[in-house]
Amino acid sequence: MFDKIAEVSLLYDFYGELLTNRQRDAMQLYHEENLSLSEIAQEFSISRQGVHDALKNAEKALYEYEQKLGLVSKFAKTRQAVEQIDSRLDQIIEENSDHQKLIGQLADIKGIIDKLDE
Amino acid sequence: MFDKIAEVSLLYDFYGELLTNRQRDAMQLYHEENLSLSEIAQEFSISRQGVHDALKNAEKALYEYEQKLGLVSKFAKTRQAVEQIDSRLDQIIEENSDHQKLIGQLADIKGIIDKLDE
Repeated sequence: MFDKIAEVSLLYDFYGELLTNRQRDAMQLYHEENLSLSEIAQEFSISRQGVHDALKNAEKALYEYEQKLGLVSKFAKTRQAVEQIDSRLDQIIEENSDHQKLIGQLADIKGIIDKLDE
Repeated sequence: MFDKIAEVSLLYDFYGELLTNRQRDAMQLYHEENLSLSEIAQEFSISRQGVHDALKNAEKALYEYEQKLGLVSKFAKTRQAVEQIDSRLDQIIEENSDHQKLIGQLADIKGIIDKLDE
């Protein structure tokens, strides 16, 4: 469904606030600012192994939250449906280019979908 | 947006698995099986006050999870958009009852929405 790094990032977006500060800082620097383990170790004045452990524990905690709550999967299912709806609307719009009122109505629906990403 | 009891139930649906067993049991009996505090106290062989505290602590924890993660609100926003889409599709279907192909296509989209509730 996702590659591992994208999956961990997604889990972090959902459950990151439940991690310890140290875990969250490590995840942030590693996944969002793309620092190396050594750079993060220097930043925190801890060992490279310490950073590695913080990241592993953070990942483990994130997967456990998803196993318990399943909210990433629940959300993904809904968003996938919305994307399907969006692409079907595009097809109908294409097929009915002469039907001005309908096009306007469908464009309004697409507007509702677009607003979800704001 | 919701009344308090509905709100707590919704938070429980999302975050219930993060509560302690005792809190979860109390929530379950109180909110889903509608037992009184006294009945739950008897069930657990603890004081009525103990049950009251377990429920209050559970509620507090649920609100704290939502404050940290905001996933109920995120999910509600998406579902609200999907409901708007659904009702607009109904309107377009009503206005285009003579356009068989379009009706079929819009019914398919409604099918995607219906499957979200399964």
